[in-house]
Amino acid sequence: MKAPPHQVAGHQARDGKLGPLIDAAGHFYKPLQGDERGLKEAAFYTAFSSNKSIPDHIRKFFPIFHGTQLLEASDGSGMHPHLVLQDLVSSRLSPSIMDIKVGSRTWPLQAPEDYIDKCLRKDRESTSLSLGFRISGLQVYGSKESGFWKPDKKMIKRFSAVDVRLVLRKFVSSNASADSGLDPDCCFASIVYGGSDGILAQLLELKAWFEEQTIYHFYSCSVLLIYDEELVLEGRSCGVEVKLIDFAHAVEGNGVIDHNFLGGLCSLIKFLSEVLEAPKCCTIKACPQVEEEP
Amino acid sequence: MKAPPHQVAGHQARDGKLGPLIDAAGHFYKPLQGDERGLKEAAFYTAFSSNKSIPDHIRKFFPIFHGTQLLEASDGSGMHPHLVLQDLVSSRLSPSIMDIKVGSRTWPLQAPEDYIDKCLRKDRESTSLSLGFRISGLQVYGSKESGFWKPDKKMIKRFSAVDVRLVLRKFVSSNASADSGLDPDCCFASIVYGGSDGILAQLLELKAWFEEQTIYHFYSCSVLLIYDEELVLEGRSCGVEVKLIDFAHAVEGNGVIDHNFLGGLCSLIKFLSEVLEAPKCCTIKACPQVEEEP
Repeated sequence: MKAPPHQVAGHQARDGKLGPLIDAAGHFYKPLQGDERGLKEAAFYTAFSSNKSIPDHIRKFFPIFHGTQLLEASDGSGMHPHLVLQDLVSSRLSPSIMDIKVGSRTWPLQAPEDYIDKCLRKDRESTSLSLGFRISGLQVYGSKESGFWKPDKKMIKRFSAVDVRLVLRKFVSSNASADSGLDPDCCFASIVYGGSDGILAQLLELKAWFEEQTIYHFYSCSVLLIYDEELVLEGRSCGVEVKLIDFAHAVEGNGVIDHNFLGGLCSLIKFLSEVLEAPKCCTIKACPQVEEEP
Repeated sequence: MKAPPHQVAGHQARDGKLGPLIDAAGHFYKPLQGDERGLKEAAFYTAFSSNKSIPDHIRKFFPIFHGTQLLEASDGSGMHPHLVLQDLVSSRLSPSIMDIKVGSRTWPLQAPEDYIDKCLRKDRESTSLSLGFRISGLQVYGSKESGFWKPDKKMIKRFSAVDVRLVLRKFVSSNASADSGLDPDCCFASIVYGGSDGILAQLLELKAWFEEQTIYHFYSCSVLLIYDEELVLEGRSCGVEVKLIDFAHAVEGNGVIDHNFLGGLCSLIKFLSEVLEAPKCCTIKACPQVEEEP
């Protein structure tokens, strides 16, 4: 049991704090949050797992759920209930990951007033209200020497629309780094965002489902974009994945589509399309780094 | 000059109040609202009219703009500036009309704090937040004897999700009336909502544009659904129209899609699709009223 090395957002099991743990068998143990949120997320996973109306091509976007388990908490406070989930990056060496909270509103209608106030303030201060989504965390693999570019939380919280546009380009660039003045080369854009198995294709699949499904509304839920530069360089586009995580605020849809999530998703799709369309996007072959490959 | 006979929402030029006027030549004179809203709406129409990037198949959804004009105000207060717009129902005898404010959020980010508070409260109290749209007004033609069913404003303000579902069915029924306990027969659903020229087809055209356009964000803007039972009975589906109105809170999109309007539009599309899919929808031929036609 150890803290996940590639966690980009959320509470972390470091410095004696409560956070998720992983094992070597590909499980991700997420401690149930103390208030009712933890129970709600467990209830969501339980109901979702057995819901036969979720098509397989949609189920693949959700982490596999293995139930709940009492475990020694990472903060040394003793036994604590954990969700046992699929570790989404267990098989990856150097995953580039972005956590994007989707929807301009992160609070369900039924939430308590003080919680709504807090969320609404965060939604207004971040890009949630303006763009329909906000980046909650990310890491971008650079090279064996430079390792990951992983901007700190405070910096991410201050991301403006302009920053978001830049970061979505950096995420698929071979020259992303903290203080690089270089324009992102968008080397991996066509293979990571584009293509028939790429992130855009997967998001469009999700979008089609959200235009129809009225079972769930996902507030404060994140889309996780994952790829592994090593795999992409080998031309294995299967390394590109979209996953949905964080369901503490998933509520019943009551026959109405999740227009809030859908709107944000459409906005994200438009942003990613624009990275692909931008003339600065080179093809993977035009990248110096890739030309060095045998 | 007279008050429009078929206005279903907004301020009305009755009882010495300030409201819109129409003339016999098909013009609709909308008084500029006293605060900056009036000027903003005039600025929107001016900019929109000359914006060459609006495709014709989208422009048709907007009222034609003929500039502004100083006119004797309907409240007798003297000369007042008015927008001169196309009267959308001038050629119609007995139009059934529904005004639907689209978007779960009716306020732009830049709005003053007290205005945001007021709008947010209304959005939460109405179906805007839950459904992504709210009905602001409607009239449904019944017959020469019964005239129109036109629920009063107070009743409309209290519409729940269940009411909205019912009203969207009544809107295309031959037996819609205030206190009818009958299930709406949805006689006109297939021709008004369905078909290649119907409301759904038109809303889908709009939706495709909203997935791409980043020029404008439309807060507190309404979709107007219009049809004329007489024309529909004659099989003239051209009588079915979708129009966008109310642009006092249209703001620049700054390169971001209007995810708020788009989400609400998708929700409305889903609601209307469900009226079409519902087994109780009869075809127009199965309606007793239509069978009487020669």
